[in-house]
Amino acid sequence: MKQNLTFIENAAGRMVPTEVNGVKAVPFKGYNKHKPTGYKAQQPIRSCGDYPADGNKRVPNLKEALIKAGLKDGMTLSSHHHFRNGDLIMNQVFDIAAELGIKDLVWFPSAAFPCHEPIIKHLDNGVIHHIEGSLNGPLGDYASEGKMKGLAVLRSHGGRWQAVQDGEIHIDIAIIAAPTADAFGNATGDRGPSACGLLGFGLVDSLYADKSIIVTDNLVPFPCIPWQIMGQNIDYVVELDKVGLPERIVSGTTNITKSPDRLYIAELTARFVRDTGILRDGFSFQAGAGGTALSFAIFLKEMMIEKKIKARFIRGGSTKYLVEMLEEGLTDYILDGQTFDLDGVRSMRENEGHQDTSPFTSYNWHGKGNFASMLDVVVLGATEVDVNFNANVVTHSDGRMLHGIGGWQNCLTSKCTILPIPAFRDRIPIIVDRVTTLVGPGELIDVIITERGIAINPLRQDLINLAKDTDLPIKTIHKLKAEIDELIGGPPEKPTFTDEAIGVVKWVDGTVIDTIFRVKK
Amino acid sequence: MKQNLTFIENAAGRMVPTEVNGVKAVPFKGYNKHKPTGYKAQQPIRSCGDYPADGNKRVPNLKEALIKAGLKDGMTLSSHHHFRNGDLIMNQVFDIAAELGIKDLVWFPSAAFPCHEPIIKHLDNGVIHHIEGSLNGPLGDYASEGKMKGLAVLRSHGGRWQAVQDGEIHIDIAIIAAPTADAFGNATGDRGPSACGLLGFGLVDSLYADKSIIVTDNLVPFPCIPWQIMGQNIDYVVELDKVGLPERIVSGTTNITKSPDRLYIAELTARFVRDTGILRDGFSFQAGAGGTALSFAIFLKEMMIEKKIKARFIRGGSTKYLVEMLEEGLTDYILDGQTFDLDGVRSMRENEGHQDTSPFTSYNWHGKGNFASMLDVVVLGATEVDVNFNANVVTHSDGRMLHGIGGWQNCLTSKCTILPIPAFRDRIPIIVDRVTTLVGPGELIDVIITERGIAINPLRQDLINLAKDTDLPIKTIHKLKAEIDELIGGPPEKPTFTDEAIGVVKWVDGTVIDTIFRVKK
Repeated sequence: MKQNLTFIENAAGRMVPTEVNGVKAVPFKGYNKHKPTGYKAQQPIRSCGDYPADGNKRVPNLKEALIKAGLKDGMTLSSHHHFRNGDLIMNQVFDIAAELGIKDLVWFPSAAFPCHEPIIKHLDNGVIHHIEGSLNGPLGDYASEGKMKGLAVLRSHGGRWQAVQDGEIHIDIAIIAAPTADAFGNATGDRGPSACGLLGFGLVDSLYADKSIIVTDNLVPFPCIPWQIMGQNIDYVVELDKVGLPERIVSGTTNITKSPDRLYIAELTARFVRDTGILRDGFSFQAGAGGTALSFAIFLKEMMIEKKIKARFIRGGSTKYLVEMLEEGLTDYILDGQTFDLDGVRSMRENEGHQDTSPFTSYNWHGKGNFASMLDVVVLGATEVDVNFNANVVTHSDGRMLHGIGGWQNCLTSKCTILPIPAFRDRIPIIVDRVTTLVGPGELIDVIITERGIAINPLRQDLINLAKDTDLPIKTIHKLKAEIDELIGGPPEKPTFTDEAIGVVKWVDGTVIDTIFRVKK
Repeated sequence: MKQNLTFIENAAGRMVPTEVNGVKAVPFKGYNKHKPTGYKAQQPIRSCGDYPADGNKRVPNLKEALIKAGLKDGMTLSSHHHFRNGDLIMNQVFDIAAELGIKDLVWFPSAAFPCHEPIIKHLDNGVIHHIEGSLNGPLGDYASEGKMKGLAVLRSHGGRWQAVQDGEIHIDIAIIAAPTADAFGNATGDRGPSACGLLGFGLVDSLYADKSIIVTDNLVPFPCIPWQIMGQNIDYVVELDKVGLPERIVSGTTNITKSPDRLYIAELTARFVRDTGILRDGFSFQAGAGGTALSFAIFLKEMMIEKKIKARFIRGGSTKYLVEMLEEGLTDYILDGQTFDLDGVRSMRENEGHQDTSPFTSYNWHGKGNFASMLDVVVLGATEVDVNFNANVVTHSDGRMLHGIGGWQNCLTSKCTILPIPAFRDRIPIIVDRVTTLVGPGELIDVIITERGIAINPLRQDLINLAKDTDLPIKTIHKLKAEIDELIGGPPEKPTFTDEAIGVVKWVDGTVIDTIFRVKK
């Protein structure tokens, strides 16, 4: 094992390392079993006397900003992913680090995208030691093959806030791309030529990093309003020609599905919500940005119109579909963590009912409550579920680490969590005996909806009762699995794994819920 | 001396205690001489598992909320003053504490008002040990007479944030009156039957208190938007019939002056700003809520219209006069810390250009910059100034402690700080050899404007040059003082003081700039 790790079994029966990238790790203890006792990360007291009195924090370029921020070997650099696959900053940052001869950096993004493929050379050449954050595309591939020096640490959006807040990870320098900002460092994502909506994923970075750099291509006279990021938390401001490509915010995951099976699953999901009585005036829901989830929202919308029902709030990731619901008066509010298209960006800028949020408000488990548990229903994806309703969202059934967690784990605390998933992907059944990687504990997952039927978690007798007198195709999960396996001719061959850990999955409370091992070739 | 204090001389030549209410005190070292080295106050890590999953944090009444919050002897309870003289909560809180037999509380309000006179009985009966905060009216009188057990600790708005942030004072329970809130604890001041504008003075309390209680008379379904206070920082929510009397927000200090002398001073001040070239497109200003400052704003407005000048921002305390300027397009923004009348409240609710702020954004000296130093000109009051431009704002020339500091100290870092003050009050000259209480160091005070002439601080040769070719009545401060003294027949008799300290004045960095001693009867 490349890191000489010691493994112990956690409460979910998964082998997890006792140490992750040199930091002592706590094994998962079960949902709501780990009670934090310590204090939040300490932040040094600053003095206005050390900052320009006229509020002008501009430095000529990114390189000077990084030098002024004290960039040196071994530091942790962070960034947000509101530009998704359109980020133009972080490749430059690591090129500059390479030019300056810096080594062993940790990159702590809120997510990485295929556009970050050039960073692989900096993993190879030692500028970056490892990445702590959601990896997908080429970087996920790279780590899956065991090429990264450190462990990939997969955290939910709420888990990322928790990890910084609780001092599990210390950010030395935060680099915050901002579509509009002033020279003092106030910044917003909702306007400017590169508008990307909001900057909520960079908020914790601005609060806890030793040094924070705003990078913008639209500098406005003070004050930049709204100030989604506050200048009082910022050290330096850099102007660049272009910080991001907003047209690349729209990724492949944010189109509605055209597959007849998936449309049927989406419709079944909407019917489940309607027929069990979850759909009522003043209700709330969240649906991810995957094609099935989007289609669910469209079916649900028709039902809301038919039954003259208005939601109190919808949680985004916002898309044009949610924006239409807001504009048509079908919801009072969108509480939005991430705009997934340019309609979302426009609406957030123009509509007071479209409220930007952050992982602090929405997802952080180590706060005095959060929004996720207040939702009446949440509709999420998964790569696998098992007969105990445990689910996987980060590895494919071939064992490769190819997806980030996003807000997925955080959303599981909703009043009703539904996973609408196809019975098969590439002729591989999705319901398995044991998920390859445990990301969400089964006790929090209430309903599995496939084109072959609906399974309700036996822990939710209330939902089972509500569904009893409907025409919904309710089955036990075992029956559902057996039917699917029979169609395919038995469960598929499982991948075999080496004993080399390539990453860990953190639970929302900072404990380690599972390990991702390298697949045997 | 009732507290057995040891005094040392600080850098301003003032005798200050080495300890304040049992906490070691740092003597004032001069402007921007004290560099903080430590960390911000530690906040315990919470878990959502300890808060209601449905977000309903309501408890039946204030008494139960205080009991649940663990109210006990010696605790520090805090509150904000956005209702100014219309607060209806804190008298109830201390009555409940008395009923529960609690003793030795510290009350840490952002300011106290005459409506809090009933609290005197709880100072007498030992329920409250002392008040740390601006005292005026009956409470100021009470403390001035040496009746309070602890020292009054006078802090600026920014100093209050700094003290909490830096851990100089720990809030056990924050009681936050909110005109609108939801059951999760999200709260806003800008709407509801008791709308008071914003809740910025309660923000630091919500962030750092062990337990925070929202008290509201307008509970709305989740989400309450805007969330000036975030539910993620709140423990309990209490509904009451009425939390405050917004009509009492308008206090005596927020009317324009009718005195011909003061109108002349206000006009001179506006002329100074115009004729020295400070008045230019895109400029910014802040004027307090006193009669002269308001009249200054009205004169300035006429000059802006005449010269076709638009401000980029005006800092409030907002009044109908500032709101008119925003609505008439004379400024892009009002950055507002406190609404002083109901036009201010309405405008903040309705106008995107009317932005709520907090002492964190505006005043906190221990941050990465703040707004105060970015202002082109600030117009403030004073009870006394001396020939070195040192000024007093908390004691009258009779030595009695009767005013709070407000944002006054924080504003002194502006690019040009002007004190327009009458030459006399009750036949007592305002320019003295040595201010009774030092609240603002002379090096930060640039211009004194009286009806007998204008004195510019010799440190500001740039302003002296700019004023040279104007028809403004510029004089040295010594000449101005001599003229005033001659009119009155010499300087007045000074009050004599006992050696009993009744309070201290903190500078914006947490050091002690002066002591208030009890006046000899």
